[in-house]
Amino acid sequence: MENSQSVRLVGFWVSPYVQRVKWALKIKGIEYEYIEEDIFNRSPLLSQINPASGKVPVLVHDGKPIPESPIILEYIDEVWKHIPLLPQDPFERAQVRFWGKFLDEKVFDLGSWLVLCSEGEKQARAVNVAIEALEKVEEQLRGKSFFGGDTIGYLDLIMGFVSYLLPIWEEIAQVKIFDPLKFPGIAAWTKNFLNHEVIKAENLPSKDEMLRYFQWRREVLIPIYAS
Amino acid sequence: MENSQSVRLVGFWVSPYVQRVKWALKIKGIEYEYIEEDIFNRSPLLSQINPASGKVPVLVHDGKPIPESPIILEYIDEVWKHIPLLPQDPFERAQVRFWGKFLDEKVFDLGSWLVLCSEGEKQARAVNVAIEALEKVEEQLRGKSFFGGDTIGYLDLIMGFVSYLLPIWEEIAQVKIFDPLKFPGIAAWTKNFLNHEVIKAENLPSKDEMLRYFQWRREVLIPIYAS
Repeated sequence: MENSQSVRLVGFWVSPYVQRVKWALKIKGIEYEYIEEDIFNRSPLLSQINPASGKVPVLVHDGKPIPESPIILEYIDEVWKHIPLLPQDPFERAQVRFWGKFLDEKVFDLGSWLVLCSEGEKQARAVNVAIEALEKVEEQLRGKSFFGGDTIGYLDLIMGFVSYLLPIWEEIAQVKIFDPLKFPGIAAWTKNFLNHEVIKAENLPSKDEMLRYFQWRREVLIPIYAS
Repeated sequence: MENSQSVRLVGFWVSPYVQRVKWALKIKGIEYEYIEEDIFNRSPLLSQINPASGKVPVLVHDGKPIPESPIILEYIDEVWKHIPLLPQDPFERAQVRFWGKFLDEKVFDLGSWLVLCSEGEKQARAVNVAIEALEKVEEQLRGKSFFGGDTIGYLDLIMGFVSYLLPIWEEIAQVKIFDPLKFPGIAAWTKNFLNHEVIKAENLPSKDEMLRYFQWRREVLIPIYAS
């Protein structure tokens, strides 16, 4: 399907899951071809490389497709071993995987994302889930530049959406989840993350475009999440 | 907290997540102490070793606690490398992780488990999710003894609940998800799995006890999942 040694990333411009993979490839200095997918009108390519879920991102390495951003990050780290994203020690790796899952489930899916896609009591519950989860994340980050200490890694990329997308979702949903005074560790991390040379160099979509896109998603998804 | 070289498993008698870890330890021939936890009245030990989620299983190895069954299986495989549970090739590992996540999300959480904890239209939707997911799993298993070919591994342990627990949930919820005629690959796998010497040697709870426990869970959880 592909040329030898080729790296392709099939993505969608505003997806925070795709953004993680872009960051990881940039950190490792891996050159790749980016292919924009219309996730609302899926191409034959996407059905072919990810028939099970049909989601982006999919990394296609030498013709072999790998879906799901946390799995892609581990794959990248196993194939290109320089500048490691995960620690080598099995216990530390397990902790990183635990917090990655925690961030994706509690801070993202059942927290921030559900806040964006709901209203009323359901939204209030999701706000609480997100805040309680951030309290636990705060304990992990307090006094450190990044999750792993001084260098950026797997958990920072998983958490990345908190730095630039959560404020957009809060603005659209008209709620407050991330209070910098309550979460000084996360507030400091946000600055460190956005000022990291690789993260700074990767262009994010403009605030206006993100506001427009997620405002529309909120309107479409509220009735679906309510059922 | 613990003696050197000690392996402890904190679990709950009927949890399919705990069962996976018991199987993995048995396959590797690792001796361990099992500690039964009352998950409805959590001990100080559990709050100490898993403050973030408070869930079982937790593997405590030389005093270091590792929660979440998929993460524990990877940890066990990284520390005790004989009789590998995951393949060594990065692409094959990524595929195993993808299907593990797929099984846990689609076949378990949003499928079978939600079927047990819901009724009416919500239940009908969950039945469909489970069946559509099993269709994709069937393609993976057709013509093979286990997911990885001839030997038991990570995905078989993740899928294990389908072999002994799904029939119980179906009976309680009075629905049919797993039709052996429609899923001959999974039907053959179920036999291979339950007849594997390690799986056969690990005692499962009795059918009566499981029926009684999950009947009660269904009654308690229906209103919670409906809100």
